[in-house]
Amino acid sequence: MSLPADLPHLDVITDADVLASLSQDDAEWAPVGRPLAAVRPRSTEEVQQIVAECAKQRIPVVARGAGTGLSGGANAVDGCVVLDTSRMDRILEIDPDNMIAVVQPGVINDNLKTAVAEHGFWYPPDPASAPWSTIGGNVATNAGGLCCLKYGVTRDYVLGLQAVVGGPAGPYGTEVRVGHRTTKGVAGYDLVGLFVGSEGTLGIVTEITLRLRPARAASPRTVVGAFGSIVAAGEAVAATTRRGLLPTALELLDRACLQAVEDWKHLGVSATAEALLLAQIDTPGAAGDEEATALTTIFREAGAEWAEQSTDDIEAEALFAARRLAYPALERLGPVLTEDVCVPRSAVPTMLASIEQIAARHGVAIPTIAHAGDGNLHPLIRTPADDEHARASAQSAFEEMLRAAIALGGTVTGEHGVGLLKRRGLRQEQSAGVLSMQQAVKQALDPLGIFNPGKVLGDPELGA
Amino acid sequence: MSLPADLPHLDVITDADVLASLSQDDAEWAPVGRPLAAVRPRSTEEVQQIVAECAKQRIPVVARGAGTGLSGGANAVDGCVVLDTSRMDRILEIDPDNMIAVVQPGVINDNLKTAVAEHGFWYPPDPASAPWSTIGGNVATNAGGLCCLKYGVTRDYVLGLQAVVGGPAGPYGTEVRVGHRTTKGVAGYDLVGLFVGSEGTLGIVTEITLRLRPARAASPRTVVGAFGSIVAAGEAVAATTRRGLLPTALELLDRACLQAVEDWKHLGVSATAEALLLAQIDTPGAAGDEEATALTTIFREAGAEWAEQSTDDIEAEALFAARRLAYPALERLGPVLTEDVCVPRSAVPTMLASIEQIAARHGVAIPTIAHAGDGNLHPLIRTPADDEHARASAQSAFEEMLRAAIALGGTVTGEHGVGLLKRRGLRQEQSAGVLSMQQAVKQALDPLGIFNPGKVLGDPELGA
Repeated sequence: MSLPADLPHLDVITDADVLASLSQDDAEWAPVGRPLAAVRPRSTEEVQQIVAECAKQRIPVVARGAGTGLSGGANAVDGCVVLDTSRMDRILEIDPDNMIAVVQPGVINDNLKTAVAEHGFWYPPDPASAPWSTIGGNVATNAGGLCCLKYGVTRDYVLGLQAVVGGPAGPYGTEVRVGHRTTKGVAGYDLVGLFVGSEGTLGIVTEITLRLRPARAASPRTVVGAFGSIVAAGEAVAATTRRGLLPTALELLDRACLQAVEDWKHLGVSATAEALLLAQIDTPGAAGDEEATALTTIFREAGAEWAEQSTDDIEAEALFAARRLAYPALERLGPVLTEDVCVPRSAVPTMLASIEQIAARHGVAIPTIAHAGDGNLHPLIRTPADDEHARASAQSAFEEMLRAAIALGGTVTGEHGVGLLKRRGLRQEQSAGVLSMQQAVKQALDPLGIFNPGKVLGDPELGA
Repeated sequence: MSLPADLPHLDVITDADVLASLSQDDAEWAPVGRPLAAVRPRSTEEVQQIVAECAKQRIPVVARGAGTGLSGGANAVDGCVVLDTSRMDRILEIDPDNMIAVVQPGVINDNLKTAVAEHGFWYPPDPASAPWSTIGGNVATNAGGLCCLKYGVTRDYVLGLQAVVGGPAGPYGTEVRVGHRTTKGVAGYDLVGLFVGSEGTLGIVTEITLRLRPARAASPRTVVGAFGSIVAAGEAVAATTRRGLLPTALELLDRACLQAVEDWKHLGVSATAEALLLAQIDTPGAAGDEEATALTTIFREAGAEWAEQSTDDIEAEALFAARRLAYPALERLGPVLTEDVCVPRSAVPTMLASIEQIAARHGVAIPTIAHAGDGNLHPLIRTPADDEHARASAQSAFEEMLRAAIALGGTVTGEHGVGLLKRRGLRQEQSAGVLSMQQAVKQALDPLGIFNPGKVLGDPELGA
């Protein structure tokens, strides 16, 4: 292998410790391969050179952003080059007249939010990883977040992409631009939509044109409800949809998650209820007040022990901070395997009941956080290290939750992606025909199979 | 050719007059081929039989909805079977708990709107053809409309599809389900997005799962501005975006369009201004009033001769009716070739000025209507019948407008699709690499090339 010699002007990393740190994302249990090297390009041209050279030598290319992914999508495969986009972190343009931003893939989500806010704009997609995760990674997984209930997911904000590809477009290393700079456009197939969520398997995204929204006028209202059971909280979620209410966010935390955050950060959040629902409403003026009142009533009718519109901005902020910190708070207590099922919203109570039963049956602790308003649940399976029996139980619980979600008309991944961990689930969810169509698309656009091989559509019985 | 004999239980149409009526859409000048037959299936199973039989005999299949398309996408090709979906017109399910509707492709857009309204919901996509066009046709073209400025296009509402396909999924005639019933989902590639807007070139869509929104509480506010020049109206559009205002609709009509509607329908709409801007604002309560006032001020500052918030619901409705009737009103005066360029919103004034210059240079009348807030302009080229010189001038003007839009960072089609008329424009807009990627996807998913061949990606020098 001669990659370093062939890319003399690039910063090629072969140091074992650094390589190891660049070889995996945040997915627990996903297999990790041994990369040949890592590179940190600064420009599209450098990405083109890397891809061309790797194609010549048939070396797999695995792109990574901040490594906050939860499915192993950015994990190294044996003998690959890890293409770390962290140095492609420039905001290239903010165009206020057209409410557009153009960014390199390594820009951190929160940094983009801050930059566009200075121009009076808002970039809505807000995965809990927003302080660390990159727009490129968000595009690769079609990341969601808290506010997608009302404002959609990453895909809804991507107008155009520049990508380095191979195959039909030209020799590997060819740069293409797909999509538009306009708000509408139907010229040809939606290649932007195909790339968003494709987890680096079709090419390397090197530039992203994003739609922005006007900044919101006022701080949103927060409605909080405390429930005596997690299933009762699920009923309140289903009732919210049934009444046609559309909060910005409708989040669920169970007692274990709240307690873990409180023990760590001492935000002053009480953890006496079995489940908490947090809703944000940003409809302005009196109409927003009416929605907040209606939501409070729905919570109470669904059996909330208490439900109030928060009048204390600091308290409201602490509650949402608790929500965002739930995953790292649990992770600091030991390994956590994160689920990401999404079910039709009316099935949220049933799915929450299933999770409780599965946890009890296998004797594993499964605290749950959820973008409940979207039906997107994140049961967090705690798995004590060095305990093979516990690990087997956790694995069984993981697989059973996927099957339960599919049986309810849901999907195995709402926003984290398939990566390595959900490859088996994908095959359970989708028909052989649909899987073959995707494999045909992959084969058509990456005939050498060098872009993140084995991920998403790969054989789940194989490692990374 | 033996299709009728091979599908004895289906209603196979070979009558020349009926076939002729099913052989073209509303696109002026697009080539029309001679079909072998037409069929009107009632179920997915019948579509499967038709596709399987056509594949066996290598007969092209051209799907059509109501034939209101404006790019020739539904035009017959020689020797094809026209698959008319008009009898697949059932609303299969309205699920209020999940705000979802499941429909067959032949359901008419306005019929769906009416049906879901009874459950307190709203299906936003509203092409001007909504009283006649089908959801299947809307999906094929990724139809837009008036309210997409705030509420998005068809693609934003399609959660899942059932389609009859061939190639990698199995023998031609295989039925697949792609997408989800959940609001979020990232399991595998976005095949739904790939099918939406693919104009029937990848398979036949037989069922569509749609996201709905809650019905809007109150009737929206209407703001009207009259301008002394069409370019001044364009300046008002650009200023609206620059200020971060997001009306539901922001429509432009020029004097010729208004006059044609008034002469036909006598709605009582005055046609003294050179251009009219119509805006709708549906933000509830005082915040909506503030937005309406701000928009009125923007119109005045941009040089409106007058600008007012309409206090008369009947007048406001007449104005929007005039907008919707503009195309048929002009069409009744003679052949109209419809443009569909979309430019970044800040470029709307420049594009409108270009249209005026192009019209003057070629001596053709080009009335313009526009979804101006989206930058999506519909210059309507009037082309007297049986006048070869006028036709050549109109064709030159058509091609020049495409080039002008591309030069401004725009696209050749905002919402009507490529069909046959924009194939040359597509090749001007997109690079050879991007076109090759799309051809590779088409080849991968339809290796026999029987689904609507020659459309979108076909050679523009060939006919239908």
